Amino acid sequence: MVTDLRVCFVGESYVAGVGDQKCLGWAGRIAVRAIAAGQPLNYYNLGIRRETSTELRARWEAECTPRLPQGVDGRVVISTGANDTGHENGLPRVDPDDSVANLAAILRGIAERGWQALVVAPPPNVDDEHNLRLSALDERFAELCDTAAVPYLRVHQPLRENPIWMREVALADGYHPGAAGYEEFANLLVPHWLLWLADPGSGLPVVR
Amino acid sequence: MVTDLRVCFVGESYVAGVGDQKCLGWAGRIAVRAIAAGQPLNYYNLGIRRETSTELRARWEAECTPRLPQGVDGRVVISTGANDTGHENGLPRVDPDDSVANLAAILRGIAERGWQALVVAPPPNVDDEHNLRLSALDERFAELCDTAAVPYLRVHQPLRENPIWMREVALADGYHPGAAGYEEFANLLVPHWLLWLADPGSGLPVVR
Repeated sequence: MVTDLRVCFVGESYVAGVGDQKCLGWAGRIAVRAIAAGQPLNYYNLGIRRETSTELRARWEAECTPRLPQGVDGRVVISTGANDTGHENGLPRVDPDDSVANLAAILRGIAERGWQALVVAPPPNVDDEHNLRLSALDERFAELCDTAAVPYLRVHQPLRENPIWMREVALADGYHPGAAGYEEFANLLVPHWLLWLADPGSGLPVVR
Repeated sequence: MVTDLRVCFVGESYVAGVGDQKCLGWAGRIAVRAIAAGQPLNYYNLGIRRETSTELRARWEAECTPRLPQGVDGRVVISTGANDTGHENGLPRVDPDDSVANLAAILRGIAERGWQALVVAPPPNVDDEHNLRLSALDERFAELCDTAAVPYLRVHQPLRENPIWMREVALADGYHPGAAGYEEFANLLVPHWLLWLADPGSGLPVVR
């Protein structure tokens, strides 16, 4: 099962791996694991710090298009929502209805281009109220992905109960862990990720 | 000397690290080395496989702008030319005059945005005739960077004489090494890179 796989990871600072001394984040780590498992791929990390899903919706296609040319097995992994649910002046930066509409639009666009999508839940941070908003959004993203028949990896709750993730986040800026935290994040994803790479149409809908 | 440094690496497959089992390439490796040396940074890898300098010229600004917001110390590292000098139907994909004009336009744009630029030479491959064209372009890029007062790291010749780089490239697809080759590439860059991060206006013009 070796094809010309090219994977774009789009989303926010967690995708970019902010805080990771190894400059891989969870995205780079799962890419390395796929290669080690015998599935070569081209790894394109397109995470942007502080970006909302509204901003992502406006740019994902322009950036993925030159990286996923005709004839390759093009994949897009999306993780967004942590910045949407951050408060600015007492309000979320993006209304949850808009976050869901943005993700839905991105998933429609990916399907129209003939690429395969995988969605990864936004991870938790040290702020309990922020995490409540994230949990609610996580629920809506799961429903959306279920309807769209796109796999959704629900790592928000497991990471909240992961002592390494939560300790590393607390020791840093309250949001971003170091290398060990990203390694925990990646470990949660790997089995589903490898299955999805091998067969995106397999029975891997919403992972609950 | 810790500032909010954000570095975009733009260019072709070597920038993206194609063939590197560790998913870092030379760009990720020098980013890791900077962090280990006490200079945190946000690492954005925007290399695209098979891209020419003409294509890079058309998209670099749209991709760097959201990643280098107002108020940060924005840096752009460019490495291009290997695809320009590749033959298609007996001719280079991009005429050398156009390659030089493209790089000049990108450097002007970076200066206009108030960002700092660093240019890295395109590395050699197994094709001697291709390498002759690359050497000629390397010479012209060095002159251009000298005139523009932008540092240019002349790694083309040292890599051609580097047995690890050349062996790894030959063992793979003739162009892209594995992790050990990218490590050699990164080792050549690190001293100049760290100096440039600390002080882009220091006496680091063209490295010959």
